[in-house]
Amino acid sequence: MDIQQIVLRSRPQGEPTAGTFAFEKSVLPPLQPGELHLKGQYYSVDPYMRGRMNDVKSYAPPFQIGQPIVGGVVAEVVESAATGFQKGDLVTGRMPWATEMIVTAKTVKKIDAALAPASYYLGLLGMPGLTAYFGLMAIGRPKPGETVVISGAAGAVGLVVGQIAKIQGCRAVGIAGSDEKTAMLTDRFGFDAAINYKTEKNLSQAVGAACPLGVDIYFDNVGGEISDAVIAHLNFHARIPLCGQISLYNSKEIPTGPRIQTMLLTRSVLMQGFIVGDFQDRFPEAFAQLGTWLREGKLTYEQTIIDGFENLPRALMGLFSGQNKGKMVVRA
Amino acid sequence: MDIQQIVLRSRPQGEPTAGTFAFEKSVLPPLQPGELHLKGQYYSVDPYMRGRMNDVKSYAPPFQIGQPIVGGVVAEVVESAATGFQKGDLVTGRMPWATEMIVTAKTVKKIDAALAPASYYLGLLGMPGLTAYFGLMAIGRPKPGETVVISGAAGAVGLVVGQIAKIQGCRAVGIAGSDEKTAMLTDRFGFDAAINYKTEKNLSQAVGAACPLGVDIYFDNVGGEISDAVIAHLNFHARIPLCGQISLYNSKEIPTGPRIQTMLLTRSVLMQGFIVGDFQDRFPEAFAQLGTWLREGKLTYEQTIIDGFENLPRALMGLFSGQNKGKMVVRA
Repeated sequence: MDIQQIVLRSRPQGEPTAGTFAFEKSVLPPLQPGELHLKGQYYSVDPYMRGRMNDVKSYAPPFQIGQPIVGGVVAEVVESAATGFQKGDLVTGRMPWATEMIVTAKTVKKIDAALAPASYYLGLLGMPGLTAYFGLMAIGRPKPGETVVISGAAGAVGLVVGQIAKIQGCRAVGIAGSDEKTAMLTDRFGFDAAINYKTEKNLSQAVGAACPLGVDIYFDNVGGEISDAVIAHLNFHARIPLCGQISLYNSKEIPTGPRIQTMLLTRSVLMQGFIVGDFQDRFPEAFAQLGTWLREGKLTYEQTIIDGFENLPRALMGLFSGQNKGKMVVRA
Repeated sequence: MDIQQIVLRSRPQGEPTAGTFAFEKSVLPPLQPGELHLKGQYYSVDPYMRGRMNDVKSYAPPFQIGQPIVGGVVAEVVESAATGFQKGDLVTGRMPWATEMIVTAKTVKKIDAALAPASYYLGLLGMPGLTAYFGLMAIGRPKPGETVVISGAAGAVGLVVGQIAKIQGCRAVGIAGSDEKTAMLTDRFGFDAAINYKTEKNLSQAVGAACPLGVDIYFDNVGGEISDAVIAHLNFHARIPLCGQISLYNSKEIPTGPRIQTMLLTRSVLMQGFIVGDFQDRFPEAFAQLGTWLREGKLTYEQTIIDGFENLPRALMGLFSGQNKGKMVVRA
């Protein structure tokens, strides 16, 4: 039976383009014991995937030319040869960008569609939610009354960080790229203030005005000049969970900017790069806590859903121009 | 009775010069109960003092124009009006740059001159030694077999870091500014390798060659291009205790360089700015451990001693051109 898959055609220089990807027909192998035949429902596009297109040492091994892109997927069981799974079950895991796939059952996890929409398992209850939780709670270590600034605040991770910051009794200040997004942050997600970095003439001044007591935690998804503006307002013993640098992922050369070490030194600041996998042992704790907050109505979420498997490359590219509000997913 | 003191005459733009300082005559007030009349023996000059000459927010409040420079001093009790101290005792503490001074006894600590030369209490057994200990042990958290790279390795802090790294079973690689210094590191202080950054044509390549298993801990005293060269070789989960940025302290503008966040992010690296005061609760532990290693012969030390109170400004300025091997002190 023919399926369709999306492979990496060439490594992009700068921004990915349509030519970065190729659509291919493929055939599924026969189902073996312990395996599941799945049909994709929701496909996650995430900024970190851009890094995997480069052939460099990083936390995730690079995608290989001619091989399918791999990412988070929610899929339905078409046929099960594994105990504990049956036709119609919904599962999530890391899977190839293919319309259907055969996977080892051990590599996926059943989801509870009664708790939340299935696609949330790619966002609030998936990698982005866990990333927000550990970055803020384990690295940021918020204390009541502290100020938390979040860049990329209207994205899949940022929305969750801001809400957890509020749950912890902090002031949450978001930076995002449109008035629609900043309004969403303050009106729907409880942020105390939000800054549109695209229209703000003096970003550092705006951060200072939004943070009268300085910045205790800077949750950085973006990097570049936005970070320069926030770092100028750090308090002593501030913490910077370094989660993303989306503004720089498409750079063709190593970006330059003000050296930050003197500032970090003179204010005893901690900066910690991390990925969610660094906290793998604590996934159950985080997942349970996010689920509890969701049930209690303390967390809500926003998604941008693009229809059509064939639109996966376009959706991924759209992340880099900020076309998503909240989590961007593609529905097959 | 007339004494001599050195005050900040003007805030330097760039490197301090003779005009940054002024020598003044002063008169000691009468001794009050609880106080000590002291005569300075050894005066510490430390890179961080440059930062205190600027009028900016930092861990140490800025020096005030017309007020004496303050730093670490070892002094002898001339007259005591405090219980527990008597004439001839040697004490250490933060004191003004003055030939004699009246201090509250509570602000100083008696030293044990049998354990080590008195001047060591400004170095190995003082602030630099404690800084080395906490930066490496509490932030770096070395594990046997790891590679520790130290910039400013031949300085007051760096020498101690390298020796503790060896005690912990690590490979110690030092970066310093002369062949005499690099020879000292490998021949006398047990470093596994040392790099002269002034003569090395390709510093990054030299770091790579000296660290065949990559860099697990980068103890940074220097910053700038030396740090760029080391950061390129960081391993996953590397740690960077950020102790000093001496190469940048005299910059008139905010120095620029490659943005480091993407590297820290993709390798889950921790960077932590710190000062020794962040670990104040643990000073007794560290002081006891350094003393034990010293008695056991596991630690040794090097000093550059300049004679003459009047040479204090020159000694301080000399730090920025690397005129010291080990700890620079001025002997009155």
